[in-house]
Amino acid sequence: MSAGPGITVTGASGRMGQMLIRTVAASGRAHLVGAVERPGHEWIGKDVGEAMGGAPMGVTVTDDALEAFAPAQAVIDFTAPAATIAFAKLAAQARAVHVIGTTGFSDDELEALVPAARHSVQVRAGNMSLGVNLLTMLTEKVAKALDEDFDIEIVEAHHNQKVDAPSGTALMLGEAAATGRGVALGRVADRGRDGITGPRERGHIGFAAIRGGDVVGEHDVIFAAAGERIVLRHIATDRAVFARGALKAALWGQGRAPGAYDMLDVLGLGDG
Amino acid sequence: MSAGPGITVTGASGRMGQMLIRTVAASGRAHLVGAVERPGHEWIGKDVGEAMGGAPMGVTVTDDALEAFAPAQAVIDFTAPAATIAFAKLAAQARAVHVIGTTGFSDDELEALVPAARHSVQVRAGNMSLGVNLLTMLTEKVAKALDEDFDIEIVEAHHNQKVDAPSGTALMLGEAAATGRGVALGRVADRGRDGITGPRERGHIGFAAIRGGDVVGEHDVIFAAAGERIVLRHIATDRAVFARGALKAALWGQGRAPGAYDMLDVLGLGDG
Amino acid sequence: MSAGPGITVTGASGRMGQMLIRTVAASGRAHLVGAVERPGHEWIGKDVGEAMGGAPMGVTVTDDALEAFAPAQAVIDFTAPAATIAFAKLAAQARAVHVIGTTGFSDDELEALVPAARHSVQVRAGNMSLGVNLLTMLTEKVAKALDEDFDIEIVEAHHNQKVDAPSGTALMLGEAAATGRGVALGRVADRGRDGITGPRERGHIGFAAIRGGDVVGEHDVIFAAAGERIVLRHIATDRAVFARGALKAALWGQGRAPGAYDMLDVLGLGDG
Amino acid sequence: MSAGPGITVTGASGRMGQMLIRTVAASGRAHLVGAVERPGHEWIGKDVGEAMGGAPMGVTVTDDALEAFAPAQAVIDFTAPAATIAFAKLAAQARAVHVIGTTGFSDDELEALVPAARHSVQVRAGNMSLGVNLLTMLTEKVAKALDEDFDIEIVEAHHNQKVDAPSGTALMLGEAAATGRGVALGRVADRGRDGITGPRERGHIGFAAIRGGDVVGEHDVIFAAAGERIVLRHIATDRAVFARGALKAALWGQGRAPGAYDMLDVLGLGDG
Repeated sequence: MSAGPGITVTGASGRMGQMLIRTVAASGRAHLVGAVERPGHEWIGKDVGEAMGGAPMGVTVTDDALEAFAPAQAVIDFTAPAATIAFAKLAAQARAVHVIGTTGFSDDELEALVPAARHSVQVRAGNMSLGVNLLTMLTEKVAKALDEDFDIEIVEAHHNQKVDAPSGTALMLGEAAATGRGVALGRVADRGRDGITGPRERGHIGFAAIRGGDVVGEHDVIFAAAGERIVLRHIATDRAVFARGALKAALWGQGRAPGAYDMLDVLGLGDG
Repeated sequence: MSAGPGITVTGASGRMGQMLIRTVAASGRAHLVGAVERPGHEWIGKDVGEAMGGAPMGVTVTDDALEAFAPAQAVIDFTAPAATIAFAKLAAQARAVHVIGTTGFSDDELEALVPAARHSVQVRAGNMSLGVNLLTMLTEKVAKALDEDFDIEIVEAHHNQKVDAPSGTALMLGEAAATGRGVALGRVADRGRDGITGPRERGHIGFAAIRGGDVVGEHDVIFAAAGERIVLRHIATDRAVFARGALKAALWGQGRAPGAYDMLDVLGLGDG
Repeated sequence: MSAGPGITVTGASGRMGQMLIRTVAASGRAHLVGAVERPGHEWIGKDVGEAMGGAPMGVTVTDDALEAFAPAQAVIDFTAPAATIAFAKLAAQARAVHVIGTTGFSDDELEALVPAARHSVQVRAGNMSLGVNLLTMLTEKVAKALDEDFDIEIVEAHHNQKVDAPSGTALMLGEAAATGRGVALGRVADRGRDGITGPRERGHIGFAAIRGGDVVGEHDVIFAAAGERIVLRHIATDRAVFARGALKAALWGQGRAPGAYDMLDVLGLGDG
Repeated sequence: MSAGPGITVTGASGRMGQMLIRTVAASGRAHLVGAVERPGHEWIGKDVGEAMGGAPMGVTVTDDALEAFAPAQAVIDFTAPAATIAFAKLAAQARAVHVIGTTGFSDDELEALVPAARHSVQVRAGNMSLGVNLLTMLTEKVAKALDEDFDIEIVEAHHNQKVDAPSGTALMLGEAAATGRGVALGRVADRGRDGITGPRERGHIGFAAIRGGDVVGEHDVIFAAAGERIVLRHIATDRAVFARGALKAALWGQGRAPGAYDMLDVLGLGDG
């Protein structure tokens, strides 16, 4: 029960928060010490296990993040940019590893995360799954190896509740492809193709989004030339892969020097 | 060499015309008796086999359609609406089956085809491939069988020279899905998803377009619900499938009662 | 809470039983009125929600099936043949729809189900997923429509704990394809291709099995000809689809004439 | 017409020879200067373009390889081991890049190629497609990065005339995966799964073969774990990709230091 580092989870009542709590509790390699929700949430003051409809876990949901971070060696945080910026400061104060799965940061918001990374380990990734991070590394490598005879297309499928397109992960893959080619994604991205588009421009990177059912997340990076195609595909069928990746990052960060890291660092694939 | 019905091909010099001529010649189930081009075309008066850069075929390209239709039991015609309307009358006079792969008809132009169908067999389809027509029928059927718990998405991939998105065939599949559900496609089509779209609307039909390499044509109709998906997929790897579909229609039409038919009739799937 | 028909679930403590209970409770279209377990089971006398480790549901687990069936408009039953035969009689007495997901019946056991179907609606299927049943129907239909120019291949993927290949569902799809072609599957099945096989025999139906990870179940029926392919694909990502199919059958059966039905009837695709 | 290096093609009348000639002629990045056939072949002395049934190309087919190699900056050679060994010496004399797509060398025959590589650039690969070579490299890399929680499966599809299973390329991919894991493929290969197989063994590499239609060649390398999968896929739709790979190698070799290279070098992925 008390094996490994203590973990606090933010956004405890959310779908991802609950999965993180279950994953930590079931891991045998870490234990839950805190659960945070926003002020006024109905879970505040309840045992988080009971609030989730199960057995008690001995951790009370609180809206006082500082209190919840104090006993933690790591904070796992899949919330929203504004909340995460505040949490970053508190994690730095608590010298806790801050694992950030939050997405949708503006450049200014990313900037606001920087000071905290001087005092604590920050691991941030738009997607915490082992496979997607490996795919990102492969995408850059293949984009570098192949010339523009190969058209790059990134196709993703997600559940019908997703509110944005393309997915953050698709954009991350697009960035990797653009980096491999030495171009800026913003100048070559073809998004939302519809109507009379004219022929595809050589060197562009296309995006397409599929939405339906409860698809957890599927990403294809297609390199299509005359007569042949390479496809790098990732299929996630269980959101637990993100929770397991986040936990892996929390464990990896223990004892590291303060700084900003990503999942390629965690996987030992940095500069791959 | 002279097995099966005699076939005349219009638009003989075009990419599709040449493919039709080769397909008929190679079939062993029909033989070429005529090849038509527009007046003034450089192929007029030449042997069509030689004009195509190969061995002579014993058929001289002509601009006199009536003469070319007279010995034919079927005319295969992938040209343009105005030409096809004229050919329809001549095919009716010749009592030849008229296989129409021409696209882009207005409602008035479609109306102009009607009289000829009283005297001859007309088979018309926007896509002559056996597989796509079957897929269209299946799409309508499945859309009718499943309720709106299943989100419908249509994804297509084509070569990088294609100028429009979604493909005409994707829209045809979308129409079939909408018909199956008893809704108008125009009111439920989600095209060109990009940016903050909000959650997917129940009952909508989404489209996504992939462009790259020399992909001949691939279409997926996805029905995605919680926990399961059905995908109806068609992959074309050779434009000859359109020519073979047309030939099949020409053979099927022999001895039929005059009237207007489509590829579902040819496939024995009419009113599926 | 009390919307729609009342449902009783048998085998309440099993993996499938629990999934059925959760599915009914969450549906909003039916409500749970009974939960049956065998005499002596530790859940007897407990609230079924609490026994499952969650909030109480107001339904006490009982070993008295007659009592549990009396208030029900439908019984959902994934147990074993002997139990199901007994339940069939009780369901008939209660005039409840009997949804049977039990598998492994002998011919004699199937015979024993017949009398009950004279008095109540029985819906029985070896696989309750909407999608797989629909795919089976489509497979037969497409196999019938296409001639042997189209090679049929059935490819399935399952988790790494599955002990047999091809899957039962793959064989069911193969039977459907063979029926569509009017041949016996046993005479045309190509299984376990390996080594020097020689060219594929025309008219044969091939099977291939992929095993890995925790894949719930994926089936492709491929019809491959020169230049084009049709693929009918089913992807299951959550075993709950079987529970939802059963619930759909229970709702569909309300007010029907007594008789024996299958999932194609439920889907409105009987004799498709 | 005379852009880029001059290329001589051996085995000019074969299916691959003709494809090479067309590819060079159409490339705009190289031009044809020689075409070799064996003594006594009916094409000797004819213009190669006319011999292929098209327009003249201004290159006469010869059986004098030395004469044909003299004006060439590269020789592309998909013939047989004995011929290729002789051509290697002549290419070395002519200081021409020797691109070798010939397969089936014995170890002694490979040894016989070595001396020539001291004087000229030799690029040799069993499969000249860019994509397959890249896929092989990626497969080894990913197999090395991921542990045995990821089950590896290799699935390939080919046309219905293929006589062996799995394909040579599938086995090459399997070798790459085994190398990445530091195991011998022979000890872990699961081929031809059928019947009661028992659960999948951890660490094994599975193979499955699909046969149908005129599929040129498709290969999937699947890495499947709990909750996620990575798939590396190659799709070939035109045998011309092998010719284009050879041409790319010929261009790449211009100005290189003499030596023996493979397609990974051409792709800039050597020792990837």
